[in-house]
Amino acid sequence: MTNNQNPLFQKIEKIRRRPNKVKDTAITLAHGSGGKAMRDLIDDIFVGSFDNPILSQLEDQATIPLAQLISQGDRLAFTTDSYVVDPLFFPGSNIGELAINGTVNDLAVSGAKPLYLTCSMIMEEGLPVETLRQVVLSMKTAADAAGVKIVTGDTKVVHRGSADKLFINTAGIGVIREGVSISAHQIQPGDAVIINGQLGNHGAAILIARGELALSTDIKSDCQPLNGLVDAILEVCPQIHAMRDATRGGVATVLNEFAQSSDVGIRLDEASIPIREEVNGVCEILGLDPLYLANEGKLVVIVPRSHAESVLSAMKSHPAGEDSCIVGEVIDSPAGVVLLQTAFGAERIVDMLVGDQLPRIC
Amino acid sequence: MTNNQNPLFQKIEKIRRRPNKVKDTAITLAHGSGGKAMRDLIDDIFVGSFDNPILSQLEDQATIPLAQLISQGDRLAFTTDSYVVDPLFFPGSNIGELAINGTVNDLAVSGAKPLYLTCSMIMEEGLPVETLRQVVLSMKTAADAAGVKIVTGDTKVVHRGSADKLFINTAGIGVIREGVSISAHQIQPGDAVIINGQLGNHGAAILIARGELALSTDIKSDCQPLNGLVDAILEVCPQIHAMRDATRGGVATVLNEFAQSSDVGIRLDEASIPIREEVNGVCEILGLDPLYLANEGKLVVIVPRSHAESVLSAMKSHPAGEDSCIVGEVIDSPAGVVLLQTAFGAERIVDMLVGDQLPRIC
Repeated sequence: MTNNQNPLFQKIEKIRRRPNKVKDTAITLAHGSGGKAMRDLIDDIFVGSFDNPILSQLEDQATIPLAQLISQGDRLAFTTDSYVVDPLFFPGSNIGELAINGTVNDLAVSGAKPLYLTCSMIMEEGLPVETLRQVVLSMKTAADAAGVKIVTGDTKVVHRGSADKLFINTAGIGVIREGVSISAHQIQPGDAVIINGQLGNHGAAILIARGELALSTDIKSDCQPLNGLVDAILEVCPQIHAMRDATRGGVATVLNEFAQSSDVGIRLDEASIPIREEVNGVCEILGLDPLYLANEGKLVVIVPRSHAESVLSAMKSHPAGEDSCIVGEVIDSPAGVVLLQTAFGAERIVDMLVGDQLPRIC
Repeated sequence: MTNNQNPLFQKIEKIRRRPNKVKDTAITLAHGSGGKAMRDLIDDIFVGSFDNPILSQLEDQATIPLAQLISQGDRLAFTTDSYVVDPLFFPGSNIGELAINGTVNDLAVSGAKPLYLTCSMIMEEGLPVETLRQVVLSMKTAADAAGVKIVTGDTKVVHRGSADKLFINTAGIGVIREGVSISAHQIQPGDAVIINGQLGNHGAAILIARGELALSTDIKSDCQPLNGLVDAILEVCPQIHAMRDATRGGVATVLNEFAQSSDVGIRLDEASIPIREEVNGVCEILGLDPLYLANEGKLVVIVPRSHAESVLSAMKSHPAGEDSCIVGEVIDSPAGVVLLQTAFGAERIVDMLVGDQLPRIC
């Protein structure tokens, strides 16, 4: 009997000829089993889309030469975020793009060049495979745009009703340039507060996408990578004091964290804060404050006053910062507090957010 | 009017005196808002427990000097896993310890010294704060035992019914020792297959914890960190060919991945595979195969035959490898296939897992 006739070997040949393609139309529990279905899902949808030599090794961890990292700076930045935004697709962006840009931006605002990301998915049984493909494709497009690679990942599937459609976690590493030291703890009275454009577009876009308002507007999420803009800022002013992206909790939250960390006051000038009329309208209807609305492509920079104009001009020259403006200044006292000078000349406290305006905004 | 009488400043003083303690008994949507409640949760439960200088900076990213990494090896290992195990607490371990050891082990089996972890939590509204405290405390204890630090994190809260209690993602980085090269692609005929003890205890413990069987046994999860055992292996044999921890999908899945990646066959000797009688019993009742049951403290090592005895002896001398044994060998053909020589002398194929034996096992 030759090998071709041996039933054992015929079975083996059948196993080996199986194509690595996902034929199901919806995610099943088997796609999280560690077995054949999961391997096919990873081969077809993840490795196929993210295509890069580190991921294709299919080891349980990515390997990166340290020499390559140390040639770009002297400190590693390491961050993580889980994304639970609802709905998955919304005007201007979707959970996949958000999961890339959110983590890229957390690295960028530390002065790091973002380099490598992980991608871990928790999927609800029944999630359409086509939805997953679209999300993964968006992640790949966003990663390419930001210049980062997705090098390792994980997939889990839970029973229908045990999660809502899809949650994504990305962790990221980047390298911080030598000489750059950005921290919420070194803000000084006299510093200027700069933002890179209109506030609240992401939060308002999600609200409208949920259909909670019978409004038709063209408000889109501002979801975008900020590492290019940060490069432009650091080129003219490596000694900026603090920088943070204003996501959940909005600019108000970032400024409160800054004021408390450095024990300084911050005074904002309401008239100089750019907010779309439609966003203000949505906020008025719902009793929200646009300063607390989430952004996904906005950062707050705290710059020594003497460098404010050069930083502002560099930001305005970058596509992600065309509408940049100085919106306030750092003051001595009251320490730990953010004040808003209203358009009418009055002054009010912009406190830490108490309660939650908008669950599952990111 | 002095500052003490000014109503604005009185309000400011009230804000600044608020204690950073969580007083709620259950997680609310506000704990994921980015605002005051979330900050208190992070300060009290996470920073308070994980206590280390990198995390305490409370920046959105951890910063680690590259010089410190490069002194320990030449390559960075980077990995991630999400943990969705149900129930959260089970005999021998819980989701928190699992989330640390699982990621530590994914780093360790690459030959890396695990160093830093992230911690990202997706919580269901209503999760008891006390449960969260216990999980976080377990994470801290496990991190200390494994010699790693949790340096950055994220918290999200979703509405009741949009997730099941608590999901945790950890990402990890470690440094691979110079000269060590472990990969599923370099396995050779003649190599020995070694495991570090009884198989299937984790899977069986979860099954029994779910109460799906009216059984009372003392089976406990084998959840443990493997980095110490890996150190012991690499000390006697830096040139081991492949190593992987046998979690979801069990030893059968790891060996299939190995056979396919290196295009070799693997023959297991059933009589030499250590499985507890009670685990075999649970498998017989449910029609499961213990080779596919999940482990959370077991690894498969593929070693050049000439080093098999010295590696085995080093493993047996380590507390995490007392029951280590050689369970099979790598063969030329049939390539890509795992065979099991049964106790009765017959031979059967141990295929990739098709379908899912046990959802939410890790």
